[in-house]
Amino acid sequence: MSGAITLIGTGPGTPELCAPAALAALGKATIIVGYHTYLKQIDSLFPDTPRFGSGMRQEVERAEKAIQFAREGHTVAVISGGDAGVYGMTGLIFDLLDGDSDGIPVEVIPGITALTAAAALLGAPLMSDFAAISLSNYLVEEATILKRLEAAARADFVICLYNPTSSKRRAFFETACAAVEKIVGGERPVGIVRAAYRDGQSVRRCRMAELRGAELGMDCVVIIGNRTTRFARGRMITARGYNLQKQSMETETLET
Amino acid sequence: MSGAITLIGTGPGTPELCAPAALAALGKATIIVGYHTYLKQIDSLFPDTPRFGSGMRQEVERAEKAIQFAREGHTVAVISGGDAGVYGMTGLIFDLLDGDSDGIPVEVIPGITALTAAAALLGAPLMSDFAAISLSNYLVEEATILKRLEAAARADFVICLYNPTSSKRRAFFETACAAVEKIVGGERPVGIVRAAYRDGQSVRRCRMAELRGAELGMDCVVIIGNRTTRFARGRMITARGYNLQKQSMETETLET
Repeated sequence: MSGAITLIGTGPGTPELCAPAALAALGKATIIVGYHTYLKQIDSLFPDTPRFGSGMRQEVERAEKAIQFAREGHTVAVISGGDAGVYGMTGLIFDLLDGDSDGIPVEVIPGITALTAAAALLGAPLMSDFAAISLSNYLVEEATILKRLEAAARADFVICLYNPTSSKRRAFFETACAAVEKIVGGERPVGIVRAAYRDGQSVRRCRMAELRGAELGMDCVVIIGNRTTRFARGRMITARGYNLQKQSMETETLET
Repeated sequence: MSGAITLIGTGPGTPELCAPAALAALGKATIIVGYHTYLKQIDSLFPDTPRFGSGMRQEVERAEKAIQFAREGHTVAVISGGDAGVYGMTGLIFDLLDGDSDGIPVEVIPGITALTAAAALLGAPLMSDFAAISLSNYLVEEATILKRLEAAARADFVICLYNPTSSKRRAFFETACAAVEKIVGGERPVGIVRAAYRDGQSVRRCRMAELRGAELGMDCVVIIGNRTTRFARGRMITARGYNLQKQSMETETLET
């Protein structure tokens, strides 16, 4: 008798921003599988349900384990931070089940992804077309990432960077910043959000020219504005295109 | 004495996918402001709280009204479908308050945006870098939209289309499809989700060559895969890059 797998996006990491449907699915699970960091964020929820945790870059093993638990009859909740379908565990589970699902039912419950959480804290930077790009060179070649960054910058997308740097990966971030700055210029507004809605949250703004030197980590999301993005009264705002008189007002000067 | 404004993303439109923080803010509101369609989706929530609704393209008046209510002392909840910061009301409120906030506190509560809701129903199409593009030519010039579409297609982004067509706007959708198909070819997998998680939900898949003829509307999100996206066992999956043996398996043939 096989069980089931539910892929759950827990959002930024507080139960207040986790969908009731996700909380309900966690409540029904007989085992919860996830990256240690995300499991810790839901420590207080359903503490009696067994957990299976593993570290970063152990996604494949974690997915295999989740499938094994389901085959043994477990109702498995696989959690990802943010949305499980955005650089999360969903793809891996479907990949591994491809042609070999044993009829295991799989459901995905969407969550609040990091770029919208970061945007909510910054103001309104995502009011126009945007591109999400992960700077992790673990699974994608740097040349491909750079090509996407340059294409997005040239086409005036707001650019959201996931995984901007890690403890072992800083040089590529600086290469990426230089490539974008060459296209958009040094004055372009940038927002940096660390640990959105969690302990240690910080919300910073700077100009493109300053981004290369910024302190960052895997818990940060960076949003680079488009041509119309400005800072006003501490908020990062991208014009949606409404013909407002106010849009021509002189915008606030950023203190550096 | 001025009130406050909370911008709320209600997600796909069911309370089960609306963050507890958003539900709490709705509960505290003395008036709820929104587009008629989104107000209707939360009909059953806090039915005694007064509503102020208006139609499509009345966003500016709605935002001005919300600010007026706040100036009169109201605790105003302004709702958007999905995430309030993604083509939603957040930018407009900040734009209008620019330099003129009277000290009105404004908070944004993020929500589950349409592209992640659609992706959850399709499988795992967003496992790699993606671009969100609205095809509405109401606020952005068609030439700019086409430029972004072509840039995203060439750089191998997964492409998420918001507002693909409306009752009055079909021709541009076909132009947009032709432009993308020229770059990615006719075989590229496409997912179409209508009314995600609501009455009338439909989840369809097709090939790029068929998209131009598809029946669509403002309640649809279209996801065009990247080079690695495939259909397998009814799911739309974009490879994340893990070196899985399974990825070389022959993928399912799509019934047309």
